[in-house]
Amino acid sequence: MPLSQHYIELLKQNKYSDDDYVELDKLADEIRGRILEVVSKNGGHLSSTLGAVEIIIAMHCVFDNPNDPFIFDVSHQAYAHKLLTGRWDSFSTLRKIGGISGFTKPDESECDYFIAGHSSTSISLGVGVSKAIYLNHQRRIPVALIGDGAMSAGLVYEALNELGERKYPFVIILNDNEMSIAKPIGAISKYLSQAIASKFSQNLKGKIANIINNMPNATYLAKRFEESIKLITPGMLFEEFGLEYIGPICGHNLKDLIYSLKLAKELKKPVVVHVQTLKGKGYSYAEGHLENWHGVGAFDIKTGKSSSSKNSIKSPTEVFSETLLQLAKEDSKIVGMTAAMPSGTGLDLLIDELPDRFWDVAIAEQHAVTQASALAKEGYKPFVAIYSTFLQRGFDQIIHDVGIMNTSVKFAIDRAGIVGEDGETHQGVFDIAYLKMIPNFTIFAPRDNETLKEAIYFANNFDKSPCAFRYPRKSFKLKDEIPSSKFIYGELEILQEGGEVLLIGYGNGVGSAYFCAKKLEEKLKCGVVDLRFLKPLPEESLKALALKYKRWYVFSENNVIGGVAESLCSFVNFNNLDVKIASFEYEDKFIPHGKTEEIEISLKRDIETITEKILNEVL
Amino acid sequence: MPLSQHYIELLKQNKYSDDDYVELDKLADEIRGRILEVVSKNGGHLSSTLGAVEIIIAMHCVFDNPNDPFIFDVSHQAYAHKLLTGRWDSFSTLRKIGGISGFTKPDESECDYFIAGHSSTSISLGVGVSKAIYLNHQRRIPVALIGDGAMSAGLVYEALNELGERKYPFVIILNDNEMSIAKPIGAISKYLSQAIASKFSQNLKGKIANIINNMPNATYLAKRFEESIKLITPGMLFEEFGLEYIGPICGHNLKDLIYSLKLAKELKKPVVVHVQTLKGKGYSYAEGHLENWHGVGAFDIKTGKSSSSKNSIKSPTEVFSETLLQLAKEDSKIVGMTAAMPSGTGLDLLIDELPDRFWDVAIAEQHAVTQASALAKEGYKPFVAIYSTFLQRGFDQIIHDVGIMNTSVKFAIDRAGIVGEDGETHQGVFDIAYLKMIPNFTIFAPRDNETLKEAIYFANNFDKSPCAFRYPRKSFKLKDEIPSSKFIYGELEILQEGGEVLLIGYGNGVGSAYFCAKKLEEKLKCGVVDLRFLKPLPEESLKALALKYKRWYVFSENNVIGGVAESLCSFVNFNNLDVKIASFEYEDKFIPHGKTEEIEISLKRDIETITEKILNEVL
Repeated sequence: MPLSQHYIELLKQNKYSDDDYVELDKLADEIRGRILEVVSKNGGHLSSTLGAVEIIIAMHCVFDNPNDPFIFDVSHQAYAHKLLTGRWDSFSTLRKIGGISGFTKPDESECDYFIAGHSSTSISLGVGVSKAIYLNHQRRIPVALIGDGAMSAGLVYEALNELGERKYPFVIILNDNEMSIAKPIGAISKYLSQAIASKFSQNLKGKIANIINNMPNATYLAKRFEESIKLITPGMLFEEFGLEYIGPICGHNLKDLIYSLKLAKELKKPVVVHVQTLKGKGYSYAEGHLENWHGVGAFDIKTGKSSSSKNSIKSPTEVFSETLLQLAKEDSKIVGMTAAMPSGTGLDLLIDELPDRFWDVAIAEQHAVTQASALAKEGYKPFVAIYSTFLQRGFDQIIHDVGIMNTSVKFAIDRAGIVGEDGETHQGVFDIAYLKMIPNFTIFAPRDNETLKEAIYFANNFDKSPCAFRYPRKSFKLKDEIPSSKFIYGELEILQEGGEVLLIGYGNGVGSAYFCAKKLEEKLKCGVVDLRFLKPLPEESLKALALKYKRWYVFSENNVIGGVAESLCSFVNFNNLDVKIASFEYEDKFIPHGKTEEIEISLKRDIETITEKILNEVL
Repeated sequence: MPLSQHYIELLKQNKYSDDDYVELDKLADEIRGRILEVVSKNGGHLSSTLGAVEIIIAMHCVFDNPNDPFIFDVSHQAYAHKLLTGRWDSFSTLRKIGGISGFTKPDESECDYFIAGHSSTSISLGVGVSKAIYLNHQRRIPVALIGDGAMSAGLVYEALNELGERKYPFVIILNDNEMSIAKPIGAISKYLSQAIASKFSQNLKGKIANIINNMPNATYLAKRFEESIKLITPGMLFEEFGLEYIGPICGHNLKDLIYSLKLAKELKKPVVVHVQTLKGKGYSYAEGHLENWHGVGAFDIKTGKSSSSKNSIKSPTEVFSETLLQLAKEDSKIVGMTAAMPSGTGLDLLIDELPDRFWDVAIAEQHAVTQASALAKEGYKPFVAIYSTFLQRGFDQIIHDVGIMNTSVKFAIDRAGIVGEDGETHQGVFDIAYLKMIPNFTIFAPRDNETLKEAIYFANNFDKSPCAFRYPRKSFKLKDEIPSSKFIYGELEILQEGGEVLLIGYGNGVGSAYFCAKKLEEKLKCGVVDLRFLKPLPEESLKALALKYKRWYVFSENNVIGGVAESLCSFVNFNNLDVKIASFEYEDKFIPHGKTEEIEISLKRDIETITEKILNEVL
């Protein structure tokens, strides 16, 4: 802390000798050391945040944060910013419950302008704050830091389109590490590579002279700029959007970065500063194009090896990946897409083995969904593998292009339920509500790895209309306690009979129901049901169950509003069934970060608390 | 029919003398005549569809539809296509219940590849079908027709990004009428204008020679092409996306169109054919930049005057517009945005009067929502005025950028409920479900014009968190039957007491509840409640009502799944209240087009049917 504090004061003085740059480089080293120290213990995002250290130092040198809002896109690259804004010590609590968030979070510091866990919002936010600055006649300027991977999402384009017309002063730093989360996808990505390759523009000197002449403190900069003249080359794409362009700049050279940002600030226009960085910079194991260093668990700094023991049980993602691959090898009609999460969704395996039929379409959830519908119309069986939280971005496409067309697109929804350390922006707790309201959809869920296979088989054979199934991050609560069984359209499975109390589980909630029943066993006999189908509800079976069980407890990992219990409540009410229902879904609040088990306890959704509650009510 | 059929056969022969072009021009006239004849009676989209007649004829001349899929973006410009594909006579039923849809619809004809009522899906669909064509080793080629207005949405960009990398053969016809629905917004729009102004490229001849040399039947085309050489100029923006570009072409010159499309087809690459058209072409009243000829009601062909009598009662849109303008004049913190629907949402009035504070951000719902959140954070009071159906496209932004940040963005949701002639793609029946599931949101609804004003006042003063209120297209069912009253947070309003049956209305549903109660009056005394707040539910009042009324009927204009009754069912069940609930919300199906009143009858949601149902149940 003390050392760093000294450097921060120094860099705020805004005057630099070459000696000062050496000091700033030391600061960068110190920041990297702290990031490695904490992330190697707590896990977190690593390679992009290591790559952005100098950019963030330069931002703090040139701009007046928080007066000038720093808008970090996705914001997992913002650790250095956290360390420079009063969170050096508390950074040790990174991603722990109650601790520092892995993303920017205004509750944590006024220096964090906005929450961001989904990508590509920064330019739109910058346009919004620009309008406010304009209306307030302020001299502030927003600064966005956005990675090249985030440039593929439509939201960026919508925002650039308005910005290019209205021309608000706005510095957009494009952190180009040529890889996004996985490998670069799409024309924009190729375009950026070409821009780098071209190096010098034809009319470079004229351009620079022109820019410098239009600046207030031109002489100082003009002199300095002679040295870095080769850093400017036109970015035609951005210029055609009506934006100024500076770059490419080496993102690890503080001198160049600071000059360029000063230049950008003085332009008083929207300007893209194109910066090249090396992912994982400063930590040899992570340097370069390695997707597995994007987000990491705890690891040994010296060896770079993961310190968490490899789970012997497969993750749902692995089961999905292997099962679909097996099917796809036998059935040439199976195709699939992911939106920039090849390894996260397990689709990487299929893209490697069957590259003609499985696609990473970049961060472009809307496009992933709509194109899938066309493929389904053409007789293919598209599996759209997207996390619950990110699929929200394809919502209108799910309704308009899949639902109304009634094409048999299969949505494989990974990261359903609480996702743990990524926190509120990543919780997969809304998919049940936002999918069940769409006509023509069939919605179901497996309870463990074996039934996940069955869910995939069912989806693969379900050719009438769209369907969706969800599964959790990392692991199901149930391992192999219950024998597997096939999915039969609209049918539930009774796992255990007994007493008058029924525990109804859906998806990973079946595990909670099952373990609750086990724990209650001696004091209270319960029936346990795996609902399996949320849509259509297993109506006849539920009616029969209502005759026997007058008290139902619902277990499912989603927001209670629009959830499973709500569907059951309206079902029993509309059908005149005399059943009292209680829900152990999540309260209607955004759920913060922390280990999943700890979060469950904090939400009173652990087995201990639930069984107590049931016993208090029933006995 | 007979005349047109003759021309269609002729144009299918694929050989043209100059005489044939004269015949094709006659066909265009005939089609325009038929469109005017029907739209002047039935209403419909007019100016864009008149502008696209020659393009569509040329498409049918050059491509083999339906084998080559024609993908019409938004598809309200596709009337000529309907007339050319067996729907000449049935076109008289345009937009009538059970009749021809105003959009493409595969149920109607195999020549309609996809449903499209929301914009900007066509390129994504084309990428999907391209993948299928590639996998099937077919020679088909998809053809998209997309207007310049639709180019602003992020979905287009996401699709272009993948297309530019994968290079599937795909002809994208950009129908540039320089206006989108309203005036052109954004950098892309300006960019297109510049492209037109530039006219000729420097290295034009070299390019053409190169293209022609790479084509199979080069000699024929090379000869023909000498004449139309001036039609080709590079579209740098598209080329930077990795797409070929041809244009701009005059969109009313069939000869040029046919040549260009043939060229595009032969390229066997993704190519943008940039075509300029005049909106309203061939009907003098509609020609040019007049937003009010985009979608029209019945009118007199000779005078161009609307034949429907102007409603003396203001529409909810007008009330919103005037009320917000009045408030905004007094409160400089009020700002607002619409996504390409300035007159549709009534925001045009405010953009005209207070252009610094009200913005049309183009078809860019995601961007509209996210930037609003930044403005709210900066202390402004942003009203986001978007139709219920289009707001679906900003869904993730509503959760991630507004909900989690808990900024006081105010969503004014126009076109809630059944919208009538636009049909399934436009029905506003999901907003209740997709908003109530988002933590931090307050959701309420006015019942008539006067309470709409109150809703706006309430929203304006509600500065804690985000809120949303909905109102129907055209008119509320209630006019001035019930005195107005202020919205009080989380409180309902009892409109009438009596009996044991309670009719609970929400939003425009209050009108149905009220008129049902009137109709039932002599046989059955009912209580009538305006729920007002769906979130938070007026819990204490509902508990009190549950003591008196044991049978509740729910009236609200939305899908029953995730709707108002579902919330009430879980409320009464979780709170151990003994109440039976029935819902007159809409069944879980996509709702087709037709006059709203006729659709309500077809769904058994008219007062007559509902009151009968209630009497049968209760008496």
